[in-house]
Amino acid sequence: MFKARSHPCLVPFDGSFQVADAPTRASEEQLAEAESQDDLPTLKQTIGRWQQRLHADGRYALLLVFQAMDAGGKDSTIRRVLTGVNPMGIRVTSFDRPSRTELAHDFLWRTVAHLPQSGEIGVFNRSHYEEVLAVRARPGLLEQRRLPPVTKDIWEARFRSIVNHERHLAESGTVVLKFWLNISKDEQRRRFLRRIRRPDKRWKFRAADIADRVLWDNYMVAYEECLNATSRERAPWYAIPADDKRYMRWQVAWLIADAIRQVNVDFPPVTSEMEQELVDAKAKLDAE
Amino acid sequence: MFKARSHPCLVPFDGSFQVADAPTRASEEQLAEAESQDDLPTLKQTIGRWQQRLHADGRYALLLVFQAMDAGGKDSTIRRVLTGVNPMGIRVTSFDRPSRTELAHDFLWRTVAHLPQSGEIGVFNRSHYEEVLAVRARPGLLEQRRLPPVTKDIWEARFRSIVNHERHLAESGTVVLKFWLNISKDEQRRRFLRRIRRPDKRWKFRAADIADRVLWDNYMVAYEECLNATSRERAPWYAIPADDKRYMRWQVAWLIADAIRQVNVDFPPVTSEMEQELVDAKAKLDAE
Repeated sequence: MFKARSHPCLVPFDGSFQVADAPTRASEEQLAEAESQDDLPTLKQTIGRWQQRLHADGRYALLLVFQAMDAGGKDSTIRRVLTGVNPMGIRVTSFDRPSRTELAHDFLWRTVAHLPQSGEIGVFNRSHYEEVLAVRARPGLLEQRRLPPVTKDIWEARFRSIVNHERHLAESGTVVLKFWLNISKDEQRRRFLRRIRRPDKRWKFRAADIADRVLWDNYMVAYEECLNATSRERAPWYAIPADDKRYMRWQVAWLIADAIRQVNVDFPPVTSEMEQELVDAKAKLDAE
Repeated sequence: MFKARSHPCLVPFDGSFQVADAPTRASEEQLAEAESQDDLPTLKQTIGRWQQRLHADGRYALLLVFQAMDAGGKDSTIRRVLTGVNPMGIRVTSFDRPSRTELAHDFLWRTVAHLPQSGEIGVFNRSHYEEVLAVRARPGLLEQRRLPPVTKDIWEARFRSIVNHERHLAESGTVVLKFWLNISKDEQRRRFLRRIRRPDKRWKFRAADIADRVLWDNYMVAYEECLNATSRERAPWYAIPADDKRYMRWQVAWLIADAIRQVNVDFPPVTSEMEQELVDAKAKLDAE
């Protein structure tokens, strides 16, 4: 089974992760390391090839969770890293603001229906983590909800729910990898300005997109606590330096390829009973 | 909006389609035509590029239905034609035998939950058509069901349900294209024998796979009636010669590309209100 290995981007399990120390740009050393390893196209092929084995084996699934501040590169990373996987083996779900019906359920409910089945790669573009990130960072959002009496440790309770849920998934054969695409506030500003300029991007820009910038510090507190509380050996968080898109994509692809290889499944063996079926079928077809 | 154009593979709308006359191999003329047009990689790029516009425009979806006899090439066609589309914009669903819960609903029910949302390409690997193909061709299957009294024209009623459902989808913005991958009985035999030989294919072979061969003629009757009854200008069937996989994939890709181009959407215009939002946002970001 998969267990997270030591890695510069891995959020440790002892609660010592600090956003202030998490680089938004790769170090010279990391860039050199990236240069020396398989490139993005090769990693994509590896992921595609191992997904086929995952499907054939039929016991495991992969769940990739992407969270980031706006313009952090979630959409483009999913597109650039995972285009090339057989669409029969991948299922991407984007989670927008919850609907009224979704809000009338526990916060994990709406994501459960979209979990990957065995043999599949599931991708959450935003996820159940919105509940402990956006909902926490935006003042008033929680208060507007009809909730049972909110105790002081509501976030602790939610972290516990998530950790137990993901442990259950891991024990059921789903490898959970979580990526925080960590961009700097400056880089976000540059990307917004670029979006405003580019004709093929302008149509999707909304003033609300920049509203979260004034809440940046709230978000960073929320990320820090969340990542510390929910990074686990079998459901790790990776804080990916995201100011340089090229490096970010490579790093995400490398971590996915490393995990799927670690699951290490193969095409299932042919049992003697199946062998007999094959012999019989061949005889029938030959006799036609 | 999309309307099916005249095409050698198009199943006409006047009920004159005959399986016996439908080629399982492309003619010299068709092969020459294929050579003279965009090749598969180019068509794949076209499909990927137009899916982005479909997403940006947000009004239309594409539903691709694949039906075929076993070993007809559904899986490999989906993989070869649609790998390369952004996985955020495509959703493939394979329909196996219905579960007990699914059987307790009307036959369209289980497929409805998997319809593509606007901007997406949905793919049905088998579909609601199983109900008028496999269920019809296999003796006894219908009788085992708990159904309201079955009248003589149960298939007509089911065809009518399908036609009305697909018309509703078309009117709601979903372009429905249906592909019957038409292989010959001989070619199926060759493919089964190849599967039995190949180590990377053997594990998934089951004796039951060849059981439908004795029902071949039943199936052909079912296909002929079904395709005649449900091919419509806005939800056409295409009978694709499928003995030559290379040609089949190219033809499917060409038809998808032609349809998605015909929808002819573009990135939405920026309204004057949005223009003002952009100006304001830029001013705010510049002032930081």
